[in-house]
Amino acid sequence: MLETLDLSHCLSKEAYQQQVEGLMLDLANLQRQCWQASIPVIVVLEGWAASGKGDYVRSLVEYMDPRGFIVHPVWPPTEQEQQFPFLRRFWLRLPPQGKVGIFYHSWYTRVLEDRLFDRIDPAQVPQTIQQINAFERQLHDDGAVIIKLWMHVSKEKLRKRLKKAAKDELHAWRIRPEDWQQAKHYNQYRQLAEEMLIYSSTGAAPWTLVEADCRRWASIKSLTTLTAALRSRLERAQLQQATTEPQLPAQTKLAPMEPDWLSKVDLTQKLSEVDYHRRLGEAQIDLLKLQRQLDRDRRPVLILFEGWDAAGKGGAIKRLTSQLDPRSFAVHPFSAPNTEEQQQHYLWRFWRRLPARGAIGIFDRSWYGRVLVERIEGFASDREWQRAYGEINEFEAQLVTADYILVKFWLHISADEQLQRFEERKDSPFKQYKLTDEDWRNREQWPLYEVAVNQMLQRTSTAIAPWTIVAGNDKRFARVQVLETVTQAIAAAL
Amino acid sequence: MLETLDLSHCLSKEAYQQQVEGLMLDLANLQRQCWQASIPVIVVLEGWAASGKGDYVRSLVEYMDPRGFIVHPVWPPTEQEQQFPFLRRFWLRLPPQGKVGIFYHSWYTRVLEDRLFDRIDPAQVPQTIQQINAFERQLHDDGAVIIKLWMHVSKEKLRKRLKKAAKDELHAWRIRPEDWQQAKHYNQYRQLAEEMLIYSSTGAAPWTLVEADCRRWASIKSLTTLTAALRSRLERAQLQQATTEPQLPAQTKLAPMEPDWLSKVDLTQKLSEVDYHRRLGEAQIDLLKLQRQLDRDRRPVLILFEGWDAAGKGGAIKRLTSQLDPRSFAVHPFSAPNTEEQQQHYLWRFWRRLPARGAIGIFDRSWYGRVLVERIEGFASDREWQRAYGEINEFEAQLVTADYILVKFWLHISADEQLQRFEERKDSPFKQYKLTDEDWRNREQWPLYEVAVNQMLQRTSTAIAPWTIVAGNDKRFARVQVLETVTQAIAAAL
Repeated sequence: MLETLDLSHCLSKEAYQQQVEGLMLDLANLQRQCWQASIPVIVVLEGWAASGKGDYVRSLVEYMDPRGFIVHPVWPPTEQEQQFPFLRRFWLRLPPQGKVGIFYHSWYTRVLEDRLFDRIDPAQVPQTIQQINAFERQLHDDGAVIIKLWMHVSKEKLRKRLKKAAKDELHAWRIRPEDWQQAKHYNQYRQLAEEMLIYSSTGAAPWTLVEADCRRWASIKSLTTLTAALRSRLERAQLQQATTEPQLPAQTKLAPMEPDWLSKVDLTQKLSEVDYHRRLGEAQIDLLKLQRQLDRDRRPVLILFEGWDAAGKGGAIKRLTSQLDPRSFAVHPFSAPNTEEQQQHYLWRFWRRLPARGAIGIFDRSWYGRVLVERIEGFASDREWQRAYGEINEFEAQLVTADYILVKFWLHISADEQLQRFEERKDSPFKQYKLTDEDWRNREQWPLYEVAVNQMLQRTSTAIAPWTIVAGNDKRFARVQVLETVTQAIAAAL
Repeated sequence: MLETLDLSHCLSKEAYQQQVEGLMLDLANLQRQCWQASIPVIVVLEGWAASGKGDYVRSLVEYMDPRGFIVHPVWPPTEQEQQFPFLRRFWLRLPPQGKVGIFYHSWYTRVLEDRLFDRIDPAQVPQTIQQINAFERQLHDDGAVIIKLWMHVSKEKLRKRLKKAAKDELHAWRIRPEDWQQAKHYNQYRQLAEEMLIYSSTGAAPWTLVEADCRRWASIKSLTTLTAALRSRLERAQLQQATTEPQLPAQTKLAPMEPDWLSKVDLTQKLSEVDYHRRLGEAQIDLLKLQRQLDRDRRPVLILFEGWDAAGKGGAIKRLTSQLDPRSFAVHPFSAPNTEEQQQHYLWRFWRRLPARGAIGIFDRSWYGRVLVERIEGFASDREWQRAYGEINEFEAQLVTADYILVKFWLHISADEQLQRFEERKDSPFKQYKLTDEDWRNREQWPLYEVAVNQMLQRTSTAIAPWTIVAGNDKRFARVQVLETVTQAIAAAL
């Protein structure tokens, strides 16, 4: 593919100047429209050294409103960044709605430069590409427009430009030894690039090959690609505004063939006080022992809690953490997203809080809010929450691939038990604050939640990330079940 | 001081149990009240190894609402964190309003452990203590309550506990070599600690010495200290609510003795088109050359722009960056803070965006909003904006100490020139978006701003961080003045 690219395309200075000004004004105008329409724009610049990526960014910078974009130069990951799944550092740099993020090199270095320099096991490459494709599709589905440019130069041109730059006092210092390696292993690098381009050119985020032997041609082609992509995205936005998505009626009952996981839970299970203290104590000691191994093996643990209001999440979390070294765990409660989080993909705020290697992260509520409260309250459209099951499975698979030990709890209680707990809270001066009007409102929607929870359990209980449904009517039983499930999961994984 | 501490204090098991439950319930209750009153709570735990810091945190964790606090274990700074002034990583971890941040070790490691292990030049210690005191005072003034506990154990107890822990399978692995060093150099460490305690015990954030040879005594004393501090802070809050701070009338004119810096600017200064292109081009090349040296010397640069609406900030920033390598600079526009930022000290969002070593950060508006728009619109109280001059000077001094090259611009134009530019914008399809109702509203307050700007220039133009007032009526002149000021400042600093 790359071999047959016609690198002789060129433009005269006059032809270039005739076009460039108009394109730049278009671009400035389109950027503003995307801003108004809250569309995030992601520009990925990859290609050979000295292929003109820097020039291109400079020309974009010149015409776009500087308040509306940010350039992210991508270097090898820092020690800190290596503590997390490799895509995390890119997630955290994604532009918020309406802004432009320009990635000068990107997540693709993982399947290109890292391959050339043997920093990635070749067996990991297909999976990494899959993760990248899922990442880009998720962003695209969330409304982002992604423009990926591969700036291609011939071997001769690459050599010539590197040599010229090396002689130029102003630029020589920016040439890395890796750049010379590209020239030396041109054919091998080209082959790797070709493979990357083929497997990661998707409908959501296609690659554009830019013939960059001639800078003027490259500049015009890149600009044309960018403006065309923005224009088409804006047209899609207008179309969407004009048509209203039909909203499905809320589902209050499971369909006959749908499994009812919640009704299968034996809520009569109980523990005596004596058994409770014995088993809880044992499990806590086990956990403390496992913590040492987690630290030694640098394994991260993520434990998430979902459940009915008043199901006992707080109490279970307390018992889980009370013996742990406070330096190595953190509890993150999640409620409504703040304004910064609202301007990002819904998974963004969870990426941000992932525990690092060796640490334990405990999430009090989680990304499952997408298919629970957001579904039921209509904060997510039907299309959005339906898509979320797959997105969540992809996300969790990435965590497990990155060595995370993932434990997911649904704390289940009966509606009667909930009512009783609400009444108790109402009457206790120490617990009143825990009970809000929202809790009562949620309670009225119990049947809706019952359907949503069952469908969530069905669609996101995977072999690598299974749910544990906790029988919560008896608090002692529930707490021991949580503790023992966690220790077993960690022991099994180590 | 530490030598004379009576470490024989102890409590019987009964006396302990009589008190602890009540204190814990108090604490839970006070935490909730602080939450409701939006008070940030900062708990700093320092002291000898094995002095019971971990136990104490665990007991706090047990009783407090886990959604309301976060424990920050402090390790040596990562490579990434070392790119910034040393307090930045603590700023970024500060609890938002209403939350509790527990620092298990803290910024004090810089003047204690780092001293013991020769990781800090002794000459830097007084200045570092000063920075810490300013940091804590700023947070205190902003409404935070800061509780600092020094957990003190005797040499014998320290040895005994380390030996015991070393034999315990569950805990041995947590003992660091540094902990044994403390026992070995007990007297030296104690002397350093004493110095630290003396110089950093301030009215805003006093130290409490906790006799920790007896764990029960230590626990009760720590809890009593914490609850007393929260209670007194809440009383202060009630008092403040009950009394209304008198608001000064807006100052529309400078007092007779106040210098009028703006009126001294010669706004008739102009550049011809030929001179403009020549000087701009030269300065851009100079800057490009200097960038190399910045990179080599790992010097960070921060350039901030303030100025009248339509004074030409955007245009000046474009000329400044158009020739730079886009990988090494970032433009950060600042407007109203988002909800996350509103829950923090006003300087927090600027700390977050500081450029790292070797990079150039360009701030389009800055922390000076505190004494300009926030003052005039009443978003900051009189006391707050008056205090801000000193806080800002302290902040900038820290940047300069940390090797930042700091350049501050006020872009000045006349009121007539502004009107003319507004009218132009109104009529140009490409510039309309730049003109908002707010601009017209700000314009009506020109005299108020004139006073505020003059007072800002007077109070924050320091020897280490001077202002440059740019004569902006002629755009060409202004842009060249900006470029040349930047290159001169960088050249002078390198």
